[in-house]
Amino acid sequence: MSQKAQRGKFIVIEGLEGAGKSTAISTVINYLSKHGVESPVTTREPGGTPLAEKIRELVKSPEITEPVAPETELLMMYASRAQLVKTVIEPALESGQWVVGDRHDLSSRAYQGGGRGIPDNQIQAIKTAVLDDFTPDLTIYMDIDPETGLARARGRGELDRIELEAIGFFERTRDRYLELAQSDSTIKTVDANRSLAEVTSQLEELLAKEVAPWLK
Amino acid sequence: MSQKAQRGKFIVIEGLEGAGKSTAISTVINYLSKHGVESPVTTREPGGTPLAEKIRELVKSPEITEPVAPETELLMMYASRAQLVKTVIEPALESGQWVVGDRHDLSSRAYQGGGRGIPDNQIQAIKTAVLDDFTPDLTIYMDIDPETGLARARGRGELDRIELEAIGFFERTRDRYLELAQSDSTIKTVDANRSLAEVTSQLEELLAKEVAPWLK
Repeated sequence: MSQKAQRGKFIVIEGLEGAGKSTAISTVINYLSKHGVESPVTTREPGGTPLAEKIRELVKSPEITEPVAPETELLMMYASRAQLVKTVIEPALESGQWVVGDRHDLSSRAYQGGGRGIPDNQIQAIKTAVLDDFTPDLTIYMDIDPETGLARARGRGELDRIELEAIGFFERTRDRYLELAQSDSTIKTVDANRSLAEVTSQLEELLAKEVAPWLK
Repeated sequence: MSQKAQRGKFIVIEGLEGAGKSTAISTVINYLSKHGVESPVTTREPGGTPLAEKIRELVKSPEITEPVAPETELLMMYASRAQLVKTVIEPALESGQWVVGDRHDLSSRAYQGGGRGIPDNQIQAIKTAVLDDFTPDLTIYMDIDPETGLARARGRGELDRIELEAIGFFERTRDRYLELAQSDSTIKTVDANRSLAEVTSQLEELLAKEVAPWLK
């Protein structure tokens, strides 16, 4: 390849368990495919490479019975993220591919920040130390009432170590998600409490507004 | 316990593979025992709690065949360290127990900093974000020529993922150890290239000078 490819875009779907992230990801992928972006790279966090998936398994394992320090959890999330960004996401974007991610940085700021109480500036210090100013082009936050989301997640089967937290944890996580979404123009909120049809139509409207200009 | 215990001391042994860290740890423990400090808590890094040991296994596994980003390795080391400090070392020191550690923070600065090339200020930013100003009271760096150390380590059996690096990696790691030891008065260097008897006598002299005053 003698011609340098135009850098791809990184779109992230965020939200609590049961917020409908998977459906939202399908909607984004369908939208991109209809507009000429075939087979974007899809990632999930924590995870996304063999090593990062092993970190995911470990950080979520309900078999870890010792108390996990919030800082330990945070660093495991960033270890997985650093591996994914450096070995998968960044090379893909660089080569012109688009990437659609199931969770990224915002999850740590909401869960380990809001939920576990680690100050946001400490989280940002770690992020900057390992990933500099790397950031998604667009983050779509699927906002759902924690009770509703957890009921859906429970319906899907066994809960992991983090999903087993008390409701207050998810309320603090949601509050932080909403706060961060308000303070950052690259984060767009979708009301995921509505019906599937309404959520899909909100998403499509958002994509038409935010993503369509990149496709010209 | 109505009376607050005097805070314990944290002594760390550092050095390349094959530098004689285990023997040095025994010498320290014997010295402490002779001077009235019975059964200090002993730790190793990465590792030291069930979760941290699982992180150790993962970060050292020669079965990880994907290229591991230096930042991933660094964050896994700090995840293990945060868990150990928050759940084992800090509570032990707080309750008045002494702790003798096989590696700590200096290993990351030497291996992931010197060896892998991550700038020291990035490592320090992560350290400060999760552990604030927590630091050992005394670090004993066992300095050995990498060729000699590796030959000894090889003699002990299978090498792990990090020990399988080329000799240049260990030379850079040693150079950084020496640099850091020169710039920090709480780090003392022992020449581990000498005979066992000479190394032990250097260690005992050092303990008499640095540790004895704490035992009065």
